[in-house]
Order: sequence, then structure tokens, then C-alpha cells
Amino acid sequence: MYIPELKNKLGSNKVSQSESALYKCSHDESPHQAVEPDVVCFPENREDVEAILEVARTHHVPVTAFGTGSGLEGQAIPIQKGISINFEQMNKVIDFSPEDMTVTLQPGMTRLELNKIINREGLMFPIDPGADASIGGMVATNASGTTAVRYGSMRDQLLDLEVVLADGSVIHTGTRAKKSSSGYHLTGLFAGSEGTLGIITEITLRLHGIPEYTMMARCTFETLEQCTVAAQNILHSGVPVMRMELIDAPSIAEVNRQNGYDFPEKHSLFIECAGAKNTVIGEVDLIAELMNDLGCSNWDTAKNPTEQKEIWKARHELTYAFSHVKGSDVTGADVCVPISRLPELVDYARELVDESGLKGGIWGHVGDGNFHTLVVFDRDSEEERKRAEYTNEALAVRAIEVGGTCTGEHGVGLGKIKFQQAEHGTALNIMKQTKQLYDPQGLLNPGKIFSGS
Amino acid sequence: MYIPELKNKLGSNKVSQSESALYKCSHDESPHQAVEPDVVCFPENREDVEAILEVARTHHVPVTAFGTGSGLEGQAIPIQKGISINFEQMNKVIDFSPEDMTVTLQPGMTRLELNKIINREGLMFPIDPGADASIGGMVATNASGTTAVRYGSMRDQLLDLEVVLADGSVIHTGTRAKKSSSGYHLTGLFAGSEGTLGIITEITLRLHGIPEYTMMARCTFETLEQCTVAAQNILHSGVPVMRMELIDAPSIAEVNRQNGYDFPEKHSLFIECAGAKNTVIGEVDLIAELMNDLGCSNWDTAKNPTEQKEIWKARHELTYAFSHVKGSDVTGADVCVPISRLPELVDYARELVDESGLKGGIWGHVGDGNFHTLVVFDRDSEEERKRAEYTNEALAVRAIEVGGTCTGEHGVGLGKIKFQQAEHGTALNIMKQTKQLYDPQGLLNPGKIFSGS
Repeated sequence: MYIPELKNKLGSNKVSQSESALYKCSHDESPHQAVEPDVVCFPENREDVEAILEVARTHHVPVTAFGTGSGLEGQAIPIQKGISINFEQMNKVIDFSPEDMTVTLQPGMTRLELNKIINREGLMFPIDPGADASIGGMVATNASGTTAVRYGSMRDQLLDLEVVLADGSVIHTGTRAKKSSSGYHLTGLFAGSEGTLGIITEITLRLHGIPEYTMMARCTFETLEQCTVAAQNILHSGVPVMRMELIDAPSIAEVNRQNGYDFPEKHSLFIECAGAKNTVIGEVDLIAELMNDLGCSNWDTAKNPTEQKEIWKARHELTYAFSHVKGSDVTGADVCVPISRLPELVDYARELVDESGLKGGIWGHVGDGNFHTLVVFDRDSEEERKRAEYTNEALAVRAIEVGGTCTGEHGVGLGKIKFQQAEHGTALNIMKQTKQLYDPQGLLNPGKIFSGS
Repeated sequence: MYIPELKNKLGSNKVSQSESALYKCSHDESPHQAVEPDVVCFPENREDVEAILEVARTHHVPVTAFGTGSGLEGQAIPIQKGISINFEQMNKVIDFSPEDMTVTLQPGMTRLELNKIINREGLMFPIDPGADASIGGMVATNASGTTAVRYGSMRDQLLDLEVVLADGSVIHTGTRAKKSSSGYHLTGLFAGSEGTLGIITEITLRLHGIPEYTMMARCTFETLEQCTVAAQNILHSGVPVMRMELIDAPSIAEVNRQNGYDFPEKHSLFIECAGAKNTVIGEVDLIAELMNDLGCSNWDTAKNPTEQKEIWKARHELTYAFSHVKGSDVTGADVCVPISRLPELVDYARELVDESGLKGGIWGHVGDGNFHTLVVFDRDSEEERKRAEYTNEALAVRAIEVGGTCTGEHGVGLGKIKFQQAEHGTALNIMKQTKQLYDPQGLLNPGKIFSGS
């Protein structure tokens, strides 16, 4: 009954029940169970989003936002069906101000498309979660990735959001100024709220200059603990590394085997420095010295952009390297802990993966204390799935115990709901009340972040 | 009736109605009308704060937090009287982890005390609003200052807050991990909420390494517009300046006259670079070249820490230089605008000050687009006060019109309430509802941020 109304308000070209449209919005890249929405809308502007929410309110229909489907915790899966909003038509730059180093865009634009436009002016948007995610999705999950050690997370890039609230009102959460002490900081609240508090229709980001020169280095250590201690040493040296990634030996072996690389099959650190040429050369020399003192092997540098790209490509292919086994599925942790607890947590993660008896790897953004495990299991074996899940859960629990978080960058979605009480304690009550305030009918991405919502 | 109960619960040594205690909590450094609380409490730990809020709830008494009284918008003035919480006894470090580059402390510790403790380990807390403010007060107003161009505002330094809510529950808003995508971002919400949503009892901050080498440079230009264009050029060069301050000629003259300096009495830029020695020397050379191309005069550098300290001391003495006229008061703007609009806004500010016929200066953190005016008026002349206020108001309105904010770092308090509707529009409704959710009885710093609250 509400679907004709949607067609009437939006135009029928923006409303689809085609099999392909429903399928696309039914899943993301996680192993969470796919659920198809009843209908998919393709808004072209804010007014369309307002109209969708009006219909949703009137008919009490759940609404779930969809970017590119690259999420890893099921945030975009419409588990209570209803309307999926696919933002692929809302992918325009609204205002690009190189002078202010800011850009305002629609949420469906992806980070690679954005960089294509702004790179011409010597500017870049550095947040890099690997996938070519939509900027809207990245805001909604507070995504980050390999460059967070230098630039922070998505939340740190935001100046303003335009949001349509459940009651139909349209708000701006900030201004174009670089800082403000006015009013309550709603920008930070919407970042990471996974479409549960409102639908973002416009995003103003701060941009960064493209560094003059970039250089990569890599080296290996005998133990994972040595890798994490090495990462700590680099952080404490004050070098503002661009990226600093740990990849364990089994993962290196897997990516070599699947993708034809020949990296030394040992626990490895991959480091990138970027800035003025002389500064970068000095920084890499300093790191070489530090790593040497710690007894690293296989020290190597790459100055050539093609070679550098190849290495980060290999890094990003890790998940696929593991998951390319037919009939298998993967599950992964995303813990983030204080740097001082990183060595013990990474060791514990290795133990858990070994004990599971399943194939798996460990890697992560060790400059942030954020790392991932990935465990491969047979899709048809409930018992294997449980063993794989157990490694995740035990690691998340331990991370919270040592003062860290169950999710450093993937978000809560469906997979981390079970840890919210342990991580947030009493604060969970006020979070739930906040959800209730913003979305009293419970229409916005119901069933995410909180259980029973 | 509730005061004996406070004494009973806290111990009478933590509850005072002495004239000096009441007077101290009655005012800050702004010209806003002083109001004495009925009683001042001096909690020593979180349990004391919980007890105070319990009494406040039972007897429906307003509660206002007080740090050091260095605020500039009246946030700490208990305009509805009741209880002031003076945090001077809650000034301890709870946990300092040099390895994690974090510190957990009580809100009454001041930034200079903190730096004394952490500097020994090569770490610093860089946020510098001039005054030796309490860290709690700085969180509550989302303060920043001269180093925000490099390190951001207070909000950007926070990993976790412990907060006692109005209903008595105690929450933690974050973890010790450097980043998180778990739950709603309450940390950002409490930063800048000016004690209207809860009482902060513990703060976990990220720290930064002390740069190896620091160098200052200054130069002058004929017009304010040239100064702001020069600042833009430096920003776009990619040099990560530590500080970049504009001071207009009348202000330089005033500080020379009052404090015996002999800076060239022209519109001036003061710049500081910090980092590895060779990098800093290269950066200052680059800036010298840029400034020269733009036709600067009086280029000078200071490498000597004593000389540098002297210059920043002069900068911080600006307000006092103007206000040391007996019987006079000062009022100041705190606008922040997109960098591209800075030249026209600074020009407009100069016009407004000139038109007022009053003595006044302009200076600010031009790397952020944040600047201040300061206008001196006769405390006994209502007409002069109005003229002074008008310069503030006209400037705030213009700043909002060009996409900026009425307050870059001082906060809303009493003075910026009147601009909240213009700046936040529809978002103000949900902010007010948020206040209502967190503080249904309206006990927490009533009358701040919102009118009629």
C-alpha cells in the first residue's frame, strides 16, 4: 500500500522492486544473513529523502540506508525489511572550495570518485578503509583504515552534516568553520550512528594537501610481539607515519599464494612516510635505525609509486586471499586497545586462532592499537562457524577488559551488539534513550547497535 | 534546608558559605553580571559529586560547575543561585601512561600543572587558551587557543570522560583505545556542553610528544587583509605551523604601551614552527620566502626559548593591556569563519570597531579562521556598553551568514545564547530535547546555551 505512494511522490523511476535492486540491498561483505527489503528507493536529492521518510512515518515502515554494500558488520542489511534507500544517485559534489580545503557532497559519492575530483587541486581525502566505500557509509560507521594513525577517523574529518530526522525536520549539525564551541556537538553523534538517528543527505569534509613525497619501508620480525613493540617504538619516536600495518606470517603466505607475490613469509611491518622529500628521507632513516636496533630482518624500502601501490594492493587483498576458498566464509575481529596492551592482545589473538584449528590471519593498524583477525570456516558447518565466532568473541571480551573497544572501525551493526553492554555499561541506557528521542517510532535501521531496538 | 544535608553527606569541611567562597564562584573573566551561589561544595572525589547531585535532585536545587573562573562567557556564573561545585580539590592525576601517551585526571587540574607532570616524560598537553584554565573547564567549553591550528580543540584530545548524570548514574563515554566505532559518541557531546548535561568527574586525554626544536617568526603588513591572505598562503603551503596569530596595529601599540615592549606598531603575524630541527629551519625559510613575495616588512625570527616565551606572553597579555583602564570593561567577539571569508570578516570587524568610536583591537588564531575583537567601554555608561555590544553582535551575525560560527572557542554561556537560533536553526530543537532528556528537572547549569532553560 505504501509502495504506490512512494512511486507517486518520487516518480516510479526512483522506486524499484526488481530482483537485482532487492538483492543488492540485501547484504554487505560480512557473513551476516542477507535479508531483502520490500522496496528500494533511489533518491536524487534531499527532498526525495524527506518524502521517503514521510511515507515511512505514515505507514510505520522501517528505513535502512545503503551506500555501496562494503560494510563488514551488516549495517546496511534491512533485517526488518521495509524500505532500503540506495544512495547511488546522490553522488554529486555540491561545493568544492580548494581555498578552504573543504568539500560538500552527497553521501553516495565514493572515496575514490572524490579523490579523482580533488586530487587535481593538490588536495586529498586520506581516509582509506580499503574498499571504495561511499562517504555516507563511512560517516555512518565512523570508518577509518590504514591512514588513521595520521589523520584520525571519519568523525575527525567532518565539519557539517545535513540530516533528515525521523520527524521530517532537516538539520545542519555544524558550519563551514574549522572549529566551533556553539551548541551541542551533533556532528560527532551522527558519525558512527549507522543510520539509526537520522538519514544523512549532505556531508562537508575537511581535506588535506597531497604530500610532496612518499616512501614505504617494510621489515620482518620473528615474533608478533616484536612487531608490536617495534610499532610502539616508531610511535614514540614522534615520526608522523602515514601508515603502519602489521601482517602476520600466515597472512603473508596466503596473499603470496593467492596473488603471486613473494614477500618474506614472516611477521611483517609495513610503514609509509609522507611529506617534504628531505623530511621523509630523514624519517625513514630514523625508522631503519630503530628497527635495526630491535633486530629486524628483510628491511626494504620502496620509493617508486607503482611498487608502493602494489604493496598496499596486496594488503587490501588479504581478506579476499583468505575468502577465495569455495564454500568458505570468513569472520573477523576489529578490536582496538591501548598501545601498551597491544603485544599481549595480538599474542592472545594468535593463540585463539591456533586453538580454533581453523585457518586464519592477523593484521591491523598497529599505530592505532587496532587490529583484525580473520578466520575461515566452512559455510555449511555450524560447528566450524561456532569455533570461528568464538575467537572473535573471546578477543572482543579481552579487548574491553584491558580498556579497549570491540570495534575500532567496522562499527557495531549486527555483529557487535552483544558486546555493547560490556563496553558501555551504564552509558548504554542513555544511548538507548537517545535513540528513542531521535526515532520514537523505531523506523531508522531497527535492530542495529542495540538489541531489541 | 538542603545545606545541612550537604554538610551531613560530604562533611562540613567540603561545604562553604564563606564570603570568599561565594564571591569566587560568582563570576568569571567576562563582563557578565556576577551572581553568588547559595553554597559552594568542594568535592574530593566522584562519590562527593554523586552526593551533591542527589541533594540537588531531592531539593530541586540548581548546580553549576566551577573550574578556575577563567571563562569568557559566564558559563560558571550560577545565575539561578543554588550550589556551585568548585573543583579545586579534585585536581589529581589518576593514571599517567607515557607508553600510551595518555593521562587520566580529575577535572580541577589546570593545564600548567598537568604539563609540569608530563613534560618530564617528553610529553605535553598542547592546548593553550592563554589562561591557566582547569582541564574540566576546557572540556566543558571545548576550549582551544593558539595551537588549535595544529592539534585541534579540546574535543579532539578526549578519549574518555566519566560523567555523573542528573539522575545519579555514572557513565564512561569512551575507552582508553585511540579510536572506536562502538555505540554513540557521547564524548563529543559532553565536550562543549558547559555542564548542562552532566558533571564531568574524570577525563582521559591523549598527549603529544614535545617537539625537538621550536622557532618563531614575525612580520608586519600594511593592511589586515594582507595579513589574512599571508596566513592563507602559509596554510596552503602545507607547513604544519604550531601557532599562527594575527595582531592588529592598535593592539600592538596597546601591549607596547602597557607592558613596555617595542614591537613594530603595524598589523602583525606571529608564527611558530616546531619539530625536528632541520625540518623547522626549512619550514621557516619557506615561510620567509612566501612572506617576502607578499611584501611583508619587519621579518624577524626568535630561536631562543626565553625570547619566544616573552613574545607569547605579550600575546596573552593583550586582553589585560586593554582592560587595565580603571572603571572600564571589555567585551569581545569570538567568531570563526571559513578561511576564504577571513579577509572580508577581519576588515568588517575593523570597520565596526572604528564606527563604535571606542578603543578596541583585533587578533586571533588566523590559521583556524578564528579571531577576536575586544572593545573597551566605560562600565558606568549604558550607552557605551550598548555600542560595544553592537560590534560583537553585528560581527557574530555576519560570521554566521558566511557559513561560520558565533563562537570558535569561548563557548555559548550567557553571551552567545542570542545567536543560537541563527546559527543552528532547526537543530536547536533537537539540542533542547537532548537537554531535556539528560536533565529533565533543569538542574544542571540552568540558563546557559539556551534561553529559557
